[in-house]
Amino acid sequence: MHRVLVERIDVGPGGTIAIEGDEARHALRVKRLRVGEGVELMDGRGTIAAGVVAEGAAGGGGRRGEHEPLLVRVERVKRVEPARPRVEVWSAAPKGSRIDEMVDQLSQVGAAAWRPLETARGVVDPREHKLERLNRIAAEAGKQCGRAWTMTIGAKAGLAEALRPEAGTMVVIADASGEAWNANMTSAAKAIRLLVGPEGGWTEDEVAAAKHAGTAIARFGPHVMRIETAAVAACAVIMGR
Amino acid sequence: MHRVLVERIDVGPGGTIAIEGDEARHALRVKRLRVGEGVELMDGRGTIAAGVVAEGAAGGGGRRGEHEPLLVRVERVKRVEPARPRVEVWSAAPKGSRIDEMVDQLSQVGAAAWRPLETARGVVDPREHKLERLNRIAAEAGKQCGRAWTMTIGAKAGLAEALRPEAGTMVVIADASGEAWNANMTSAAKAIRLLVGPEGGWTEDEVAAAKHAGTAIARFGPHVMRIETAAVAACAVIMGR
Repeated sequence: MHRVLVERIDVGPGGTIAIEGDEARHALRVKRLRVGEGVELMDGRGTIAAGVVAEGAAGGGGRRGEHEPLLVRVERVKRVEPARPRVEVWSAAPKGSRIDEMVDQLSQVGAAAWRPLETARGVVDPREHKLERLNRIAAEAGKQCGRAWTMTIGAKAGLAEALRPEAGTMVVIADASGEAWNANMTSAAKAIRLLVGPEGGWTEDEVAAAKHAGTAIARFGPHVMRIETAAVAACAVIMGR
Repeated sequence: MHRVLVERIDVGPGGTIAIEGDEARHALRVKRLRVGEGVELMDGRGTIAAGVVAEGAAGGGGRRGEHEPLLVRVERVKRVEPARPRVEVWSAAPKGSRIDEMVDQLSQVGAAAWRPLETARGVVDPREHKLERLNRIAAEAGKQCGRAWTMTIGAKAGLAEALRPEAGTMVVIADASGEAWNANMTSAAKAIRLLVGPEGGWTEDEVAAAKHAGTAIARFGPHVMRIETAAVAACAVIMGR
């Protein structure tokens, strides 16, 4: 089933949605979808529509223009709840392409959101990272793995903000000094904010600030992991609670 | 603390070990270790020695030859048990560089072993993958994250062999059709063999064979994951039981 990300799904069964741009070009010119073929539309915010390619799009015998829209007749629309527990990951930014791989993997594992976290030993300025590109990576990974809700990419934040969650959100800081994570640590939380530190780890001041704020400190495996591996492993462990 | 992988640690406290080759060159010429500096030696099979750079190696005032050995005087030797539970991952081989990243991440997460698994829909022949290179990646990742036991890379295996474990090993097959993994599934097992299928998933015949063999079928998250993400996430979940 070919999946297409759309801005919004604002019609019901029987209605038609016109899709333009890269997604239309990919469906018509690369995947060569034909009239009547099934398509799944996703808005990345919980709505999924099953439909078929409609007349006027592909296969009509005419020449295909570069900017031809993909027309999809919607057959069914469903709303999907976000994955629970909601896990947001705030981490130091890995270097180079590893940040892309982290966002891609977190999206597959099921994190609800990622934000770059400023830390004392973090060396990469998140401004370099072109959050727009990370948004595209998250959306593409979400489409491939069938997520109804695209993982969101947030602006950079400091540790003080990270340690003050809204009500119902529990903060967990990943650190080798903590006890092995167990589900009881967060069983009362509706949402979990996971903090992952930089290469070189948290400073003593940062750990003290976390303890002062009542933050749970947990380790998620027997070994020291790089940022992106720790983020993905810890998110998987928490989501599998 | 600079870590060095060695073939064997066959002396006790007070003894000296001479290290040659890439590890010696890296320590002396890149890291520029000096006499008296601390070094940690690891044999990758559970023995770790703390020592210091000894006279005759670096810093003696003489010219450094390209093939100069690194001499380390051993101060303490300890034996470390392997991480428990023992988790071995047998998976379809991801394409291109993703197999390298998978081995790197599995090593950080703590898998005891990885083997390429032949599956009906697996398209990459593991012979292409230069198991020797994967061994080096596993060893290097293990050194960086302080693993006393290097993750081993095994030869390719078929599903029939994968489903017949030795006594005490329990097989778990990762598939979206299974129930969410929980620790009770493997609580009696001394070792767990995790099977991860190819892009496109297991065939019905493969799932039937697994069921016939009494294999647990579990899912490790809400979404479909690529091979390497599924392997890393599932291994982290099982190790965090």
